[in-house]
Amino acid sequence: MPKVTVHRKAHFNAAHRLYRKDWSDTKNFEVFNKCSNPNFHGHNYELIVSLTGEINKETGYVFDLGILKDLIKSEIEECFDHKNLNIEVKEFQDLNPTAENISVVIYDKLRKHISTHLDLKITLYETPRNFVSFSGS
Amino acid sequence: MPKVTVHRKAHFNAAHRLYRKDWSDTKNFEVFNKCSNPNFHGHNYELIVSLTGEINKETGYVFDLGILKDLIKSEIEECFDHKNLNIEVKEFQDLNPTAENISVVIYDKLRKHISTHLDLKITLYETPRNFVSFSGS
Amino acid sequence: MPKVTVHRKAHFNAAHRLYRKDWSDTKNFEVFNKCSNPNFHGHNYELIVSLTGEINKETGYVFDLGILKDLIKSEIEECFDHKNLNIEVKEFQDLNPTAENISVVIYDKLRKHISTHLDLKITLYETPRNFVSFSGS
Amino acid sequence: MPKVTVHRKAHFNAAHRLYRKDWSDTKNFEVFNKCSNPNFHGHNYELIVSLTGEINKETGYVFDLGILKDLIKSEIEECFDHKNLNIEVKEFQDLNPTAENISVVIYDKLRKHISTHLDLKITLYETPRNFVSFSGS
Amino acid sequence: MPKVTVHRKAHFNAAHRLYRKDWSDTKNFEVFNKCSNPNFHGHNYELIVSLTGEINKETGYVFDLGILKDLIKSEIEECFDHKNLNIEVKEFQDLNPTAENISVVIYDKLRKHISTHLDLKITLYETPRNFVSFSGS
Amino acid sequence: MPKVTVHRKAHFNAAHRLYRKDWSDTKNFEVFNKCSNPNFHGHNYELIVSLTGEINKETGYVFDLGILKDLIKSEIEECFDHKNLNIEVKEFQDLNPTAENISVVIYDKLRKHISTHLDLKITLYETPRNFVSFSGS
Repeated sequence: MPKVTVHRKAHFNAAHRLYRKDWSDTKNFEVFNKCSNPNFHGHNYELIVSLTGEINKETGYVFDLGILKDLIKSEIEECFDHKNLNIEVKEFQDLNPTAENISVVIYDKLRKHISTHLDLKITLYETPRNFVSFSGS
Repeated sequence: MPKVTVHRKAHFNAAHRLYRKDWSDTKNFEVFNKCSNPNFHGHNYELIVSLTGEINKETGYVFDLGILKDLIKSEIEECFDHKNLNIEVKEFQDLNPTAENISVVIYDKLRKHISTHLDLKITLYETPRNFVSFSGS
Repeated sequence: MPKVTVHRKAHFNAAHRLYRKDWSDTKNFEVFNKCSNPNFHGHNYELIVSLTGEINKETGYVFDLGILKDLIKSEIEECFDHKNLNIEVKEFQDLNPTAENISVVIYDKLRKHISTHLDLKITLYETPRNFVSFSGS
Repeated sequence: MPKVTVHRKAHFNAAHRLYRKDWSDTKNFEVFNKCSNPNFHGHNYELIVSLTGEINKETGYVFDLGILKDLIKSEIEECFDHKNLNIEVKEFQDLNPTAENISVVIYDKLRKHISTHLDLKITLYETPRNFVSFSGS
Repeated sequence: MPKVTVHRKAHFNAAHRLYRKDWSDTKNFEVFNKCSNPNFHGHNYELIVSLTGEINKETGYVFDLGILKDLIKSEIEECFDHKNLNIEVKEFQDLNPTAENISVVIYDKLRKHISTHLDLKITLYETPRNFVSFSGS
Repeated sequence: MPKVTVHRKAHFNAAHRLYRKDWSDTKNFEVFNKCSNPNFHGHNYELIVSLTGEINKETGYVFDLGILKDLIKSEIEECFDHKNLNIEVKEFQDLNPTAENISVVIYDKLRKHISTHLDLKITLYETPRNFVSFSGS
């Protein structure tokens, strides 16, 4: 059967700041500029989750997008939405929540729920003009 | 000459339902949920057709997007737009019109009109949040 | 207190056809063209509901958009989403489901749940290029 | 000369929480739900500033949108972008930063720089699905 | 019958420059900056035409959007699309093609083809961030 | 470290025409149709620049998008924005400014400023419906 990629778009709103605990405020500001504001700022993150695999001959689906929607809700939205990523999300206790690192964390959280027969790709918009994508390697 | 991908966006509005004739209504509803509504529902499908190939040194084109626009119109829009996919489009007489299957049908219909020197990719939005892509294998 | 308008965007997918039962197929086609296809076609309807009123001094809200989201879900989405408007929605049993008429029906359904201290406006996108708006008179 | 409205779109990213200092955490959560998270969350705010007035016969402009862009930058973006609205913006020291209240604050900040011959309207998107508009009364 | 507004979106691509023939190049640059470039620049103009009137009880239409689409095509797109507004469009021979002035010209061109029972409004996007609207007075 | 792609969106407005100096006007019109208008037309070009590489373990960045924004501004926007591509941009003195060729020119201009450890991809929207992408080979 042909291989098709199915995509599901979701979103969450969160606060964050970019900084390293082991750097001074001055160095954090030099490297991360206004994104290192100690009082935080925030974004409407737009997330696209993409799965690639063979079409199931019986259903015509690669993967039921209703199930993917629920999986994104339970694994990502409930953990990240209306949260402070630095303070409230354990994966960022010692990891700078750049868009790059957030996309890897989302990949790792979803990968364990998705069959290895399917390729997984994450696209994450931090703003309409800045976004990242990650396919697992 | 360098290889560039050119993309053309189009759209069509259609009705469909997801179901298998050889399944009971109950089973169809279990698998396809409200998408199996026997009275149909519908979508504004957004379609992106992408062709990859070398730039023609003389014209600076990979493929004239005006010609691609006309090809999409005659091969896809005239067959699918304002139609009931299950009832009126012959390719779906025995094929469930999931977004995955529609993308493969569109690929097959266009592939025979596009030179083999060009790679073809189909991206199809069923809704702004659900979409699929297919590159032919 | 100043008057502010708050807007909430929602969507539903539905099938419909434009026609009058008391007209011949020929006349329906003359007036409504391909939109009168007896096998139906469909759309991803995008809906914006707008409420205008004074800011509540205590909460800073004109109207809680979470409550408006739930109201749109129970009154509109559950009735219209993945439905055939002509067959399954009682308001269109004898009313042609043009975007204009759908916007009036949505207005009437929501108006009875919204305090008269608030003005109500409906904006309904049938496609990204065709849309209507209605403010109740 | 005819009256035309000119619009300029801008944006800023900020953190906030919805709450009243004089309410308990429990009451704040009852009213503002997850938006009252004490660790803050955030948004990409999209802002549209609209000015209505007569076309200047000499220039063909109602208002130079380059000047409006700079005014939005100095008065709004520099105060709000990458900031925590509750902690760092003085207008919200005792005012709940709901989208409604933010739109009124933006209106008041810009109104004093815009000639009274021009009408002013603010549209503020907190998310792609939730937005507000304010025209000054 | 209730009054509803129907909207149709269209677009055209054109070149223009902002300048007055009776001003020096220096003064044109002072007032219009890089928009006065004598070699022209250009835009993808997005146009929304809005008509307000009573719903026709028989058809459920305020105005057939297919007819409006054709009217915009014959009156606006064929005159403006892929044209140089300053050189090739007679209305701008002595009128600076600012977005404000273009919206008035479009209004005047369409107004004579639209019944006086209908209100007309023009919205014109010069860029995604700069746009104007005009209702005829 | 995992490889992530970071994307930055920018834009510029420019005039152009498609034609070859060594062809007659008739032949240019036959091949390039209305795009060969000798008086030029124009577009709002939307540009996405994508860089793929390993996440820097120290910063969590693949590449600082603020630096990429500035690089796009100095190398592309300042050369192309509000310009006539045929007349004012030296790369198109003898090269037809099709979207394909513009994307290759942008690639070449940026490639020399980007470390070879990073892959570079250009996506260029000439209109919302016509766009191209180029990865350098």
